[in-house]
Amino acid sequence: MSDPVLLEVTRGDFVESRHRGAIAIYDFDGKPVVEIGDVDRLLFPRSAVKSMQALPLIETGAADALGFQDADLAMACASHVGEPAHVERAAAMLAKLGLDESALECGTHWPSDHASEIALARAGGAPNQLHNNCSGKHSGFLGVCVHCGMDHHGYVGFGHPFQQMIRETMQDVTGIAHDSENAAVDGCAIPTYAVPLRSLALGFSRMGGGKGLSADRAAAAKRLMNAAMHNPFYVSGTDKADTLMMQAAPGRIFVKGGAEGVFCGVIPERGLAIAVKCNDGAGRGADAIGANIVAQLFADEPDVATRIEPVALPPIRNRNGAIVGGIRPADILAELQI
Amino acid sequence: MSDPVLLEVTRGDFVESRHRGAIAIYDFDGKPVVEIGDVDRLLFPRSAVKSMQALPLIETGAADALGFQDADLAMACASHVGEPAHVERAAAMLAKLGLDESALECGTHWPSDHASEIALARAGGAPNQLHNNCSGKHSGFLGVCVHCGMDHHGYVGFGHPFQQMIRETMQDVTGIAHDSENAAVDGCAIPTYAVPLRSLALGFSRMGGGKGLSADRAAAAKRLMNAAMHNPFYVSGTDKADTLMMQAAPGRIFVKGGAEGVFCGVIPERGLAIAVKCNDGAGRGADAIGANIVAQLFADEPDVATRIEPVALPPIRNRNGAIVGGIRPADILAELQI
Repeated sequence: MSDPVLLEVTRGDFVESRHRGAIAIYDFDGKPVVEIGDVDRLLFPRSAVKSMQALPLIETGAADALGFQDADLAMACASHVGEPAHVERAAAMLAKLGLDESALECGTHWPSDHASEIALARAGGAPNQLHNNCSGKHSGFLGVCVHCGMDHHGYVGFGHPFQQMIRETMQDVTGIAHDSENAAVDGCAIPTYAVPLRSLALGFSRMGGGKGLSADRAAAAKRLMNAAMHNPFYVSGTDKADTLMMQAAPGRIFVKGGAEGVFCGVIPERGLAIAVKCNDGAGRGADAIGANIVAQLFADEPDVATRIEPVALPPIRNRNGAIVGGIRPADILAELQI
Repeated sequence: MSDPVLLEVTRGDFVESRHRGAIAIYDFDGKPVVEIGDVDRLLFPRSAVKSMQALPLIETGAADALGFQDADLAMACASHVGEPAHVERAAAMLAKLGLDESALECGTHWPSDHASEIALARAGGAPNQLHNNCSGKHSGFLGVCVHCGMDHHGYVGFGHPFQQMIRETMQDVTGIAHDSENAAVDGCAIPTYAVPLRSLALGFSRMGGGKGLSADRAAAAKRLMNAAMHNPFYVSGTDKADTLMMQAAPGRIFVKGGAEGVFCGVIPERGLAIAVKCNDGAGRGADAIGANIVAQLFADEPDVATRIEPVALPPIRNRNGAIVGGIRPADILAELQI
């Protein structure tokens, strides 16, 4: 049985493309509230679980010992777009460890923010590992290694003790095994683990509400979520989907996308956690599915819902800037009862 | 009923994402050979039909009167990636009309070829309409307007006599109505018309074999296809999917992608035309589905099939360059009997 069409991409009066996917929404008691599509199928959460991967940074005491600020913690949970402020902050995080860009093992790519990419090229520059969207997360990883006295070399490898620490943490949070059986390699060279969508929703319900976690872990999770929700620029970047959604209601919405169409979110005041997979891997799909769910949860606050609209109902423009189509929820998503 | 999964996107030992789609393969007698998925559903062919839109350039005598070479005709059928050679050729085509970049109405965007984009920025430059992937097509459009004595201003508009000429041509080639009822606006501002996938396959079988077309139109179609097949660089660009596929067997393979997951192709020696829609609109999906079909048609020529492999079975690498996954055909595509 196939997952339903959740989004329609329109042009003029016609539907041009369709995105299918699955949705799991869990309450903070760890109970399913909405399950659409196959929530048992394995998927890689990719960057959507960076906040879970950042738990050791708090729990080991590394963040406090190193003097990391809330914006640094947001960067540890981020897929930033390589704006100058992101690059500078990642460098400053590494400097606090007595390290520099050369310690990173995430690889190099040009800033995904187009204006920053062009500005870097215009200045005669070239990207380094600080521009990698994961440089904040990796700086946090290195922080744990340095603080705990581990040799940081090879910290991205499956066999490194730091990755073992992440595995144990994520296993506890999501309630599902993380080992060599379900491991593959993420874009930034660290392991990523195939898990069911429902385990992601359960994991984020624990991150948001703390139930099922130790008191220390629950506090660490709350601190990371708050840091991200209050520093949304550092989680993605100017006018980017995750940042826009969190800016719509500061401190009240946590969202984080992952490559290949993953979206996770927590609405603390509603006691709900959201996990989405857009089956074809489209980022535009995951963003819009997630944004439609979040917008619906804020339907009684039109100001908030309106600020989410550019992500929930994005227009499609031609090269002259005219609106020629858009993305909209299919009926099953538009009529979701949460 | 949903269209089948045609491609699997893998990471490690797992399928991470899935692309569904429809395929129509027609022979040069205009008969279906393969139909998978819903081939009656309407879709916008977008840039995949640029060769059909270029027919008036030949049929009116404009191409010969203006001294257009085969590479110019390839550009008229192209979605080029904005390399310097593409930009220069578009400018030269316009110069032959006594026009320049300001006559184009396609809009501006940065080169989609990343190296060309960075080089342009490094040189302190900025894109203009010549960098638009459609600038060759629009230069051809302007060529028809100038040659036929039409006022070219507003040539992109639905009501302009040139667009009426295109509509009549495409209606004849595809056998289906093109009018205000099924029109929307393409990325480059011209109308695009919603048609069923089977009509696209039929249209390309006529473009390739000429059956059902007037002798003049059949000759014009053959001339355009040959120009593209012998100048594949000008149809897309260095190491790009359409170019790589046509370079795999020079003069023997015509392919052209379109935005939102469209792929069309003709294999003249096999007397077959191919039309594909990747339902979610992914370009990586349309390219790989099309390449797997073309590779299968050349299965008895391992050299050709091997040259198509980078498009048919593209690896997925992490930011350090290590292969961590790939795209592969699902069973229904891998076991296609043509």
